[in-house]
Amino acid sequence: MSTIFTKIINGEIPAFKVAETDNFLAFLDIFPVAKGHTLVIPKKEVDDIFDLDPEIYTGLQVFAMKVAHGLRKAIPCKKIGTMVLGLEVPHAHIHLVPLQTEADLLHFNQKLQVSKEEMEEIRKSIAAQIQLR
Amino acid sequence: MSTIFTKIINGEIPAFKVAETDNFLAFLDIFPVAKGHTLVIPKKEVDDIFDLDPEIYTGLQVFAMKVAHGLRKAIPCKKIGTMVLGLEVPHAHIHLVPLQTEADLLHFNQKLQVSKEEMEEIRKSIAAQIQLR
Repeated sequence: MSTIFTKIINGEIPAFKVAETDNFLAFLDIFPVAKGHTLVIPKKEVDDIFDLDPEIYTGLQVFAMKVAHGLRKAIPCKKIGTMVLGLEVPHAHIHLVPLQTEADLLHFNQKLQVSKEEMEEIRKSIAAQIQLR
Repeated sequence: MSTIFTKIINGEIPAFKVAETDNFLAFLDIFPVAKGHTLVIPKKEVDDIFDLDPEIYTGLQVFAMKVAHGLRKAIPCKKIGTMVLGLEVPHAHIHLVPLQTEADLLHFNQKLQVSKEEMEEIRKSIAAQIQLR
């Protein structure tokens, strides 16, 4: 059965996409811990990020770096924090979270309420700052 | 002034090193949130991981992958979680944490008490499993 992320990749589930290449996709987490909280995934469905082919793994990390560069231009923050947990959705994903304090990433169960309209505005502001080439 | 990590690189401060190359170093976090909690750093002192040269950034991620592969062989766990926070020590570093549950990474202020002797045993067991080539 496809993971929820594969359904997003295939367009079966809508998502606030901020960047996409042939192999990778970045989109807003719909349960953000901070504004601009973004998920970066390989399109290939692999559970554990450390089981990706080294080439895809490296490409994913470089793609995440480009997304992070756009994110920190779009969202005022001290740094972009990253996290890979991966015990819930069995499809490797990197969380990118604009940080004001370390607690922004660590209070992972305290989700923000963000309207669809605001999510779309955040999405547009990030997408506009990402340079994939 | 050198960061504490640069002092570890230079051998001015002792550390439980698990892997080292010309450009990168992995060593046990002395305030572990789980057994095997490892820090992976570039030897070049750069504050924000996303400000590393792309080549060093990519090398760091590949090095981290190899350390993670060794870590999951050495320490029984469901997955290796990763985190980059970086608001405390101004020297880019990746946390690698063997996870039993997601809480292992998120309860970041709940540190384990591990004796030096046990740290050295953990260090040896991880170092023995890391294949850098």
